[in-house]
Amino acid sequence: MTSVALYTVNNTVRSVATLCKVYRSAHGTAGFHSFLCSNSKRAFLPGGKWSFIRTGTRPMSHTSQGWISFKGYFKAFLAAGAVAVIGELARGGAIYFPRAEMASKISKVEEGEGDTRERCKTFMSPPVTDIKVLEETKDAMSTRMEMAIMETQASFCKALEEVDGGTFKVHRWSRKEGGGGISCVMQDGNIFEKAGVNVSVVSGYLTEEAAKQMRSRGKVLKGKDGKLPFCAMGVSSVIHPKNPHIPTVHFNYRYFEIEEADGSKQWWFGGGTDLTPVYIDLEDAAHFHNTLKSACDKHNPNYYPDFKKWCDNYFYIRHRGETRGIGGIFFDDLDSPNQEEVFNFVKSCAETVVPCYLPIVYKHLNDSFTPEEKDWQQVRRGRYVEFNLVYDRGVKFGLATPGSRIESILMSLPLTARWEYMHEPDKGTKEAKMLEVLRNPIEWI
Amino acid sequence: MTSVALYTVNNTVRSVATLCKVYRSAHGTAGFHSFLCSNSKRAFLPGGKWSFIRTGTRPMSHTSQGWISFKGYFKAFLAAGAVAVIGELARGGAIYFPRAEMASKISKVEEGEGDTRERCKTFMSPPVTDIKVLEETKDAMSTRMEMAIMETQASFCKALEEVDGGTFKVHRWSRKEGGGGISCVMQDGNIFEKAGVNVSVVSGYLTEEAAKQMRSRGKVLKGKDGKLPFCAMGVSSVIHPKNPHIPTVHFNYRYFEIEEADGSKQWWFGGGTDLTPVYIDLEDAAHFHNTLKSACDKHNPNYYPDFKKWCDNYFYIRHRGETRGIGGIFFDDLDSPNQEEVFNFVKSCAETVVPCYLPIVYKHLNDSFTPEEKDWQQVRRGRYVEFNLVYDRGVKFGLATPGSRIESILMSLPLTARWEYMHEPDKGTKEAKMLEVLRNPIEWI
Repeated sequence: MTSVALYTVNNTVRSVATLCKVYRSAHGTAGFHSFLCSNSKRAFLPGGKWSFIRTGTRPMSHTSQGWISFKGYFKAFLAAGAVAVIGELARGGAIYFPRAEMASKISKVEEGEGDTRERCKTFMSPPVTDIKVLEETKDAMSTRMEMAIMETQASFCKALEEVDGGTFKVHRWSRKEGGGGISCVMQDGNIFEKAGVNVSVVSGYLTEEAAKQMRSRGKVLKGKDGKLPFCAMGVSSVIHPKNPHIPTVHFNYRYFEIEEADGSKQWWFGGGTDLTPVYIDLEDAAHFHNTLKSACDKHNPNYYPDFKKWCDNYFYIRHRGETRGIGGIFFDDLDSPNQEEVFNFVKSCAETVVPCYLPIVYKHLNDSFTPEEKDWQQVRRGRYVEFNLVYDRGVKFGLATPGSRIESILMSLPLTARWEYMHEPDKGTKEAKMLEVLRNPIEWI
Repeated sequence: MTSVALYTVNNTVRSVATLCKVYRSAHGTAGFHSFLCSNSKRAFLPGGKWSFIRTGTRPMSHTSQGWISFKGYFKAFLAAGAVAVIGELARGGAIYFPRAEMASKISKVEEGEGDTRERCKTFMSPPVTDIKVLEETKDAMSTRMEMAIMETQASFCKALEEVDGGTFKVHRWSRKEGGGGISCVMQDGNIFEKAGVNVSVVSGYLTEEAAKQMRSRGKVLKGKDGKLPFCAMGVSSVIHPKNPHIPTVHFNYRYFEIEEADGSKQWWFGGGTDLTPVYIDLEDAAHFHNTLKSACDKHNPNYYPDFKKWCDNYFYIRHRGETRGIGGIFFDDLDSPNQEEVFNFVKSCAETVVPCYLPIVYKHLNDSFTPEEKDWQQVRRGRYVEFNLVYDRGVKFGLATPGSRIESILMSLPLTARWEYMHEPDKGTKEAKMLEVLRNPIEWI
């Protein structure tokens, strides 16, 4: 018997069900079949939910590991548009949409971005910008990006709520200088120690120096009387699970617009998704990186290798000589080949967040762990804090910016962390293996 | 019955016993009589130990609080030179040396700094610099300071071991570029969650830019071919106790020497001691600040008010709008009126570390606490981490300096810490009172 983690969307316009099969291998470790996760386009949409469907048959394994029954719980959230797919599953078949077929199934979604007011109903909160303004500026990139980050927040929060059983607390906040944000936090849940998904949409004026600092290539921008109107928005998230066998994930997708004195607009996108496991699981790592690679490859074959490298370089705790985790992708200052194409790439990345991470969560949901494994997790959490407070550009910029919402910036810190003096795992242990990988990043796929 | 916390020194040359009476008030909170602690000169020396002496009578209270019996354990470490004092105590009397009498008792100590080799025997480890070299350069300030910081480390570690029952692990390390250090750490002790006392004595060459950064006033120093030979040494310590009613203490005393191209030497001292309680205890705060004030007043009446203010400004977590704790003293770049006088002041400060802190530890040793109080301690620990990683100049400099011993720099981080999203204590609670003081520093004496 096989359990299938389903992501279903209840939306009259768009109905997509995307599947990631969760199984347990013959030697007891959980695994998953990531084909659909890594190949679906626009698969994870807000308003959808992850569910477990227990199917009646045991399909053939596509790996050397055998499929065995998964003693998970049975839950089904059946949305109208997903019935056909679930019907197939109920008959015990594993369904893989070929790429072309999948593309045709989602063509409606790609044709347009839908009705603004309807889309807003699926969000965790009304968007930062007034809905009327968003309707009036429907085609502006800032509006399209705000809608996209609100959707990313909603789809990720709902997927996490489904697996955890808890509920996100939603805080809507505004910034005196312009704009605001929506912070969703679930603390001390069943599965998640601390899960934060934050959207911010801020605007105002930057000095030329601040504008230069904001941009990684440090371009000099000319403002009127030295001041530049800007608009910055993004979705960012850090998820710290309780179980040390479920990794921490982080993602951030952002867009900047700055208007120069002559009225021309400078814009760029940035972002990335990266995984921080406590223990190495080669299959998890391959699934995570493959899913990201698929999203990148649809846009540019150089994106994955380039942005994987950038990620390893960025999330580096220099004073420890370790990366923070096993990486993923990271990019900044992306403004070519054109705004439409970069936006589509960023959307693809944002849409892979759920299929990158949720199958890993489901796989390890019932893994048992020892107090020593929990301790090692806490030591790694300490390293996470070190990176975030000492090196992370976003955190540093936020802490140094008057009027920032500190709680949203520091939401990324774990609920608990530990610093042991001269902690060094014994040779040959799985803790030592984890450290070896952090000290010498490897190619996962 | 009254318990008296004794600090005794077993040294044929120097015999001093300094007393801090620990008692419990009528309403159950522990207190102490700090007169002797704050007035003793050169009272805490390496090789000494803190002890509890249970006396038979209940002396009159000098405050509005009554003296009541303290249900502490009975321990006595009797050093030859302390017998007379202890004899008096055994007869139930509370003995206060008048200032003049105390001064005469310690005159031998002040006359000279004693035999180098003998003094080294009381250290936690052989000093960083070869003893032979220290003997040959006995009168050099760098030697006198190295001896002083080694003594401070030893006296503090031994006092902490005595109260905890645990033992410090001593690591002697050397630095490729010159010098090294001695790190003493007690982790997960009976009383202390993490206690670190570190000595470092390093030398080498600085660039003119680095030399400028090292000095808070940023003086430009001229080096030979842009390089300046330097020598930097210091003792630093952070103590995180388990019980949330025992505050965290931090101190650091340091000396720098830089040689300019023309052979002239620039030198300065820096340092400070500050307290970070989890809950406000007015008596503790007054004792701590009074003890520091007494040490300062012996040298300059402006030192305490000036350095108290500097401390509040330095240990400020800007992004939280809170000080790290209730302060103490902090100074840097001190090079007047002359080297001898500044050295004597720094020695006075270093010698107050034990009498500042240990009476507070003994007072709260048996305080009970709730899980909620422990949680609040963990949240405050999180703030401690934020200050140390984001603002502390020493940590920032250390992390950015190749060849630094990271374990010694980050020894200051607590064993465990916690970050709760939007944590704000309810109005009127003792947690809210603590926060109020951190947001609006007050005068404690």
